[in-house]
Amino acid sequence: MTTIDPLRATCPAPAAETERVLLGHGSGGRLMAELLDDVIAGGLGETGPLEDAALIGLGDVDVVFSTDSFVVTPRFFPGGDIGSLAVYGTVNDLAMRGARPVALSLAYVLEEGLPLDELRAITASVAAAARECGIHVVTGDTKVVGRGAADGAYLTTAGIGVRLLDAYPSAANGMAGDVVLLSGPIGAHGTAIMSAREGLGFESEIHSDSRPLHELVAAMIAAGGPQVHTLRDPTRGGLAGALNELAEASDVAVEVDDAALPVPPQVASACELLGLDPLHVANEGCLVAFVAPAAADPVLTAMRAHPAGRYARAIGVVRETARDLPRVTARTLVGARRVVDMLIGEQLPRIC
Amino acid sequence: MTTIDPLRATCPAPAAETERVLLGHGSGGRLMAELLDDVIAGGLGETGPLEDAALIGLGDVDVVFSTDSFVVTPRFFPGGDIGSLAVYGTVNDLAMRGARPVALSLAYVLEEGLPLDELRAITASVAAAARECGIHVVTGDTKVVGRGAADGAYLTTAGIGVRLLDAYPSAANGMAGDVVLLSGPIGAHGTAIMSAREGLGFESEIHSDSRPLHELVAAMIAAGGPQVHTLRDPTRGGLAGALNELAEASDVAVEVDDAALPVPPQVASACELLGLDPLHVANEGCLVAFVAPAAADPVLTAMRAHPAGRYARAIGVVRETARDLPRVTARTLVGARRVVDMLIGEQLPRIC
Repeated sequence: MTTIDPLRATCPAPAAETERVLLGHGSGGRLMAELLDDVIAGGLGETGPLEDAALIGLGDVDVVFSTDSFVVTPRFFPGGDIGSLAVYGTVNDLAMRGARPVALSLAYVLEEGLPLDELRAITASVAAAARECGIHVVTGDTKVVGRGAADGAYLTTAGIGVRLLDAYPSAANGMAGDVVLLSGPIGAHGTAIMSAREGLGFESEIHSDSRPLHELVAAMIAAGGPQVHTLRDPTRGGLAGALNELAEASDVAVEVDDAALPVPPQVASACELLGLDPLHVANEGCLVAFVAPAAADPVLTAMRAHPAGRYARAIGVVRETARDLPRVTARTLVGARRVVDMLIGEQLPRIC
Repeated sequence: MTTIDPLRATCPAPAAETERVLLGHGSGGRLMAELLDDVIAGGLGETGPLEDAALIGLGDVDVVFSTDSFVVTPRFFPGGDIGSLAVYGTVNDLAMRGARPVALSLAYVLEEGLPLDELRAITASVAAAARECGIHVVTGDTKVVGRGAADGAYLTTAGIGVRLLDAYPSAANGMAGDVVLLSGPIGAHGTAIMSAREGLGFESEIHSDSRPLHELVAAMIAAGGPQVHTLRDPTRGGLAGALNELAEASDVAVEVDDAALPVPPQVASACELLGLDPLHVANEGCLVAFVAPAAADPVLTAMRAHPAGRYARAIGVVRETARDLPRVTARTLVGARRVVDMLIGEQLPRIC
């Protein structure tokens, strides 16, 4: 017979809960902003506004530099695939600092067992997208990890660009009085991915808006020069996330007009079914800009003359911040004001 | 009663075997070279010698650009971790084109559930390594993938550098008559990782050689200028892989001297136990150079004056190619010649 030693038979003390990475940390929302501030930028000792790309003066040129990883699933979706997305995504980050793209790097992390034909298809899509943007993939890397480890393929692109003459857009340059311009309809990318993933039946109707925006930006800069104060492509976190980030970086408030927000009817239906706010859904082919009032009309005209900005419109204005008031609000159809907040955690994982 | 229709009861035709990505495609050996040539560089329409980094003329500066993904497991190992490795790896790729590093990007793919403290430790290591190299992480990205994917964390860094004056090293610049210089002992990184992973008991003795090499390169260029014809850090695929790649890109042959190859005794023991050839084992802190004979002595002297090149030595010579003869050979202790071939498939997965 064994006896129980009461001194040893204690319950284990509850372990302190370990803080862990959550899916919501990749959402483009509030949780992600905290992770970036507290752990990553904080750990790196980097401060300053969160820009889509960095500006580095080298000799007589301003080099713009950016990177993004792409883990989207499914890898092929209506309107695009992980290969073209990886090119356009980084080209657009360069464009948001007013740059002409010059060269790309491409790093593959491939899962053992990925069919080579699929790798060929992804690579062909990268090549076609780079050609479309007038650039080359000049350097790269390929790693292979074991089965189960990388969902087929992860792509990381980095890009180098050169700042256009008279282009000084920065997340921190927004000013009270600026007009908020949006280049096109919102919500298509995220709902296309979600629909393809969940088989919701919207696949035939909703295509990702994934496209390069550098030529649209060049046209805007040609029309507005330094009066184009800020540029951002509202990817993860959607338009609401982008507006909140810009408002915070520029220390301003933003007031948009609900009636002016272009949500395609199919996107609105899919969002209703999925319980999503289209303002939080990712986009991969539109941009939002804060432009000085004197330049707003010529810049809007230039945008509409470009295929990627055909449906461009003014959606609101930049205001002074007021203490205790939310940074981003929307005027509703009945004239009330509602808060447009960032997403807190995760809405649609693996959308880019 | 059902009857079997013999016309329908055929055996399915054997499906054509699908070509798939293998672990060996990430080895730095022959399989990897084929994947790069046939599928990736071929698919991108890029040709030319396989360089560690690309050179891009922008205004009055030559910008050097490179990228690498890091999937090493374990993430913390004797002599380093995935964070510092991701910095040094890209800094070294820039250095192999004769560049001074200027700025880094950092893209994380994180697995849901990774302890935040581990992410903090990795980020602190990135920051310390960047500081050591005198550069900043200026741009980045963070994605989160579901549990079971990404083995905790994958890192992709890209780097920008500026070509040093009088530095023109290229994989294609080797010439018959060049002296082959090696900056230090080989085999430590791969055996350190393997030993840590498999618990072989060498952990206390073998530390990764992971370190930055840009200052060593600057000293070599100051001593030899354009006579430093080629530079390469023999990472995946080891010294044998690097020599074969350089010999092929330069269309030359290389003859090394077995007795001159610096393999530390602990590395030799570990390799014997594991059945590895130290020439195929990855390094993360040494480089091999082809240098014009007139400059070999001053360059070697400059290398030895630098901590990262203290044990530098001449290990062989570059020859004209001869038809039907292997590109890289070693003179053995008894005066015979053996072929030094690239690894075919996989030797040590996930070493970087």
